[in-house]
Amino acid sequence: MPFVEIHMWQGRSNEQKRNLVAAINAAMVEHAGANAENLQIAIQEYPLENWARAGILGIDRTEK
Amino acid sequence: MPFVEIHMWQGRSNEQKRNLVAAINAAMVEHAGANAENLQIAIQEYPLENWARAGILGIDRTEK
Amino acid sequence: MPFVEIHMWQGRSNEQKRNLVAAINAAMVEHAGANAENLQIAIQEYPLENWARAGILGIDRTEK
Amino acid sequence: MPFVEIHMWQGRSNEQKRNLVAAINAAMVEHAGANAENLQIAIQEYPLENWARAGILGIDRTEK
Amino acid sequence: MPFVEIHMWQGRSNEQKRNLVAAINAAMVEHAGANAENLQIAIQEYPLENWARAGILGIDRTEK
Amino acid sequence: MPFVEIHMWQGRSNEQKRNLVAAINAAMVEHAGANAENLQIAIQEYPLENWARAGILGIDRTEK
Repeated sequence: MPFVEIHMWQGRSNEQKRNLVAAINAAMVEHAGANAENLQIAIQEYPLENWARAGILGIDRTEK
Repeated sequence: MPFVEIHMWQGRSNEQKRNLVAAINAAMVEHAGANAENLQIAIQEYPLENWARAGILGIDRTEK
Repeated sequence: MPFVEIHMWQGRSNEQKRNLVAAINAAMVEHAGANAENLQIAIQEYPLENWARAGILGIDRTEK
Repeated sequence: MPFVEIHMWQGRSNEQKRNLVAAINAAMVEHAGANAENLQIAIQEYPLENWARAGILGIDRTEK
Repeated sequence: MPFVEIHMWQGRSNEQKRNLVAAINAAMVEHAGANAENLQIAIQEYPLENWARAGILGIDRTEK
Repeated sequence: MPFVEIHMWQGRSNEQKRNLVAAINAAMVEHAGANAENLQIAIQEYPLENWARAGILGIDRTEK
């Protein structure tokens, strides 16, 4: 612990993911007192047809 | 919030997913008082070899 | 499978939960072809200080 | 989306949580291009007896 | 990684949890080649009113 | 219930998964008193670029 799961759409580059996990790791260490060696982050990516807001699939939305 | 995660096997059509998220959204608004604009649903799909019941993988089961 | 996790704030009554899971179960059977006997739903409830939107905790928001 | 779940031990103060979600929100906006209005974060807190590393419960570990 | 989340009803003793995480840890090391030092297990416990099978809450079921 | 989610890297064979779910099922029945018929296990597999420890992506680590 801690374990952080990020649920987001697919499509970010490895460089974006690299910067994202570094920043979240730093936030967890600074604000939650986490030990970085035991802090793991997992990114779950979803295609637009596997996500909905207000009951409308991502593939059917004009505003995401 | 709310956030609803659906774990199921892969293979539903977009039309099935479209109807499913609409119905779940309606259920959350009616019965849990959710604000649809902040209600998100994510569908995680699994291949049969990544799921088990009673300790037997989906690819090895005759009855799912 | 399927397994449905609902993440929401604490505070709904048992009667609300009863109606909610019945409606979600019906939606999963009708639209996703689920076998109700193997369909499980879990509700995770969070206090307002354990949830944020736009980086602002629920206890600090005026609009939820 | 995105939806971020943080699994950690119980015991952080509201002030720590306040700073933590603000920093994670900023990281998601900057590095993943998230729309903050649709970005939700949930914190799941566990007592030490509900977590293990290397097969040893938190209540039995000397080094966390 | 790996990270294992166990969703179950509340009520197991610490001794049951102790034996459970030891056995799951051993299974992950033996069968999935996991490094125990980086293998974390979290137990999420639910009251009976926060879980349903076949659309019926745990508090309303006679057979669990 | 119970529902067990295993988060791990992709790449295990079906034979490894077969043995893994059998062992975890046995552990849950023996130590947590689970009813195997209602015990489901799901495996979520991640590519190395979707996981980090200590803020460093799996694709950038030399030691996993």
